[in-house]
Amino acid sequence: MESQILSWLRERYPRSPRLPVGIGDDAAILDLSDAPRAVVTTDMLMDGIDFEVAKCGPAKIGRKALAVNLSDLAAMAANPIAALVSLALPTNTELDFVTAMYHAMDQLATEFNVVIAGGDTNCWDHPLAISITAIGQVTARGALLRSGAIPGDQILVTGAFGGSILGHHFDFQPRVTEALQLHQQFELHAGMDVSDGLSLDLARLCEASGCAAEIEFDRIPIAPAARTLSEQDGVPAWRHALADGEDFELILAVPKATAQQLLSQQPLEVPLTRIGTFVDGAGLWQHNGRGDRIPLAPRGYLHGTDA
Amino acid sequence: MESQILSWLRERYPRSPRLPVGIGDDAAILDLSDAPRAVVTTDMLMDGIDFEVAKCGPAKIGRKALAVNLSDLAAMAANPIAALVSLALPTNTELDFVTAMYHAMDQLATEFNVVIAGGDTNCWDHPLAISITAIGQVTARGALLRSGAIPGDQILVTGAFGGSILGHHFDFQPRVTEALQLHQQFELHAGMDVSDGLSLDLARLCEASGCAAEIEFDRIPIAPAARTLSEQDGVPAWRHALADGEDFELILAVPKATAQQLLSQQPLEVPLTRIGTFVDGAGLWQHNGRGDRIPLAPRGYLHGTDA
Repeated sequence: MESQILSWLRERYPRSPRLPVGIGDDAAILDLSDAPRAVVTTDMLMDGIDFEVAKCGPAKIGRKALAVNLSDLAAMAANPIAALVSLALPTNTELDFVTAMYHAMDQLATEFNVVIAGGDTNCWDHPLAISITAIGQVTARGALLRSGAIPGDQILVTGAFGGSILGHHFDFQPRVTEALQLHQQFELHAGMDVSDGLSLDLARLCEASGCAAEIEFDRIPIAPAARTLSEQDGVPAWRHALADGEDFELILAVPKATAQQLLSQQPLEVPLTRIGTFVDGAGLWQHNGRGDRIPLAPRGYLHGTDA
Repeated sequence: MESQILSWLRERYPRSPRLPVGIGDDAAILDLSDAPRAVVTTDMLMDGIDFEVAKCGPAKIGRKALAVNLSDLAAMAANPIAALVSLALPTNTELDFVTAMYHAMDQLATEFNVVIAGGDTNCWDHPLAISITAIGQVTARGALLRSGAIPGDQILVTGAFGGSILGHHFDFQPRVTEALQLHQQFELHAGMDVSDGLSLDLARLCEASGCAAEIEFDRIPIAPAARTLSEQDGVPAWRHALADGEDFELILAVPKATAQQLLSQQPLEVPLTRIGTFVDGAGLWQHNGRGDRIPLAPRGYLHGTDA
């Protein structure tokens, strides 16, 4: 089966100027001479943890596996260029399953100008695991890091949060275009994507930047799915928004004047919302709007340590 | 457990000039401005397929997982610079197991100037899988491809073949230094590493180059382990040498005059041996030295399709 897949891949992903040597040699060659600071990230998704293969089928898995990696490149405001795909397939996997996974991956890859540059396909008597490495390039504006937030910066987020388990964790759009556009046109101090939960990831950004965050609870954009889930499980929708994770929206640290401009201009197709302010200190604080604040424990899903 | 590992990794692998942003942000940044053609490769190793965790322990797994990737970079005569490590760990894995795996990986990484630039650590209720992506740089001499062999070139190999299952598949030395040295100092037309079996991989090189190979059977360097295995299983040692795989030695296509020079100079610490000649046509041929030849079926272990 592995050789069938390799033949199929070789035909499917030919060489290109960006990829002078592609699938079929010992390694792929990527020409990065136009922007030689590479951004590299890897994410492994596993059956029973990140998806349930029996329920969701191959297409959603393929798309998600690439999308989570593109979201990491978006978090750095990097231009995606290539991906490598490693598969551990259950021995009875049909070729159709694999090609369906690749077709879905491809749609997303095409949308973001990403070439599938290689991979490693293996079989075993255990569940499916898929590990993708995405490679991007730092733009002339430099990379957007987690560590640049300073007290006084406003906390802006794209989109809405919570309830992703109802479907959004498969069909989310990695915020690549949004991150590149904002980073190109505006002064951003820091950024990251929300994979493990808004509050947990915001706490990580604070830690990396050496500051604290005061969150204005009533401003957090709550996804309709968070409300649906709340009706089902009785957990408040705001708690889903803060803790569910896999929203794959951006958290940005933006100087006050720029934030005002962004909030009034709304330059993206997705809404930008201010949810609080970075302040001196450490940790997360709940700001009640009357000048009082109480500590907020970061909550989220520790589904992996992505480095 | 995942957060413990991440803290450990972050301390262990600090930033460097080559790695201005390392473990802990959404992605790593690699500065490739000194040689902006990147070589990327990925290999996934799985318990029960590439190792047996209960028998071999963590150190051999960590070393092998990185070494097979470095061997792919060697095959391209690329300079290794970084690696990303994704893990699917059985839920009951101890932190000590993971750190032992990394310590072994590190020894090899240090030896080859490779930085561990990131990864993704996950747990599940299934066996261990480890997927590494290695990134290298094409040198000023360009990349060494599979596709450059021309009829008349001599087939040279490093080291000896067969019986790697007895231990060599864990302790082999990726031929990075050898490939870089030869490619720098001599005219090489094509090259690859032997992962799936000498005859199978040679057949692949022939296919990529559009030529055939005549092998002189009695010249094939047979590893002592192939003879030991032969005594155990009754299979001729030469068959082990041709088909076992995981030797991770180099096959090179070298113009005749250069080959003579290399064979007499022996510029490497490991022996260089001529095992035949590339000729017009297709496939592998067994050359009996009396002007006759018979076709040779490529044999090897299809343990994965590495692209």
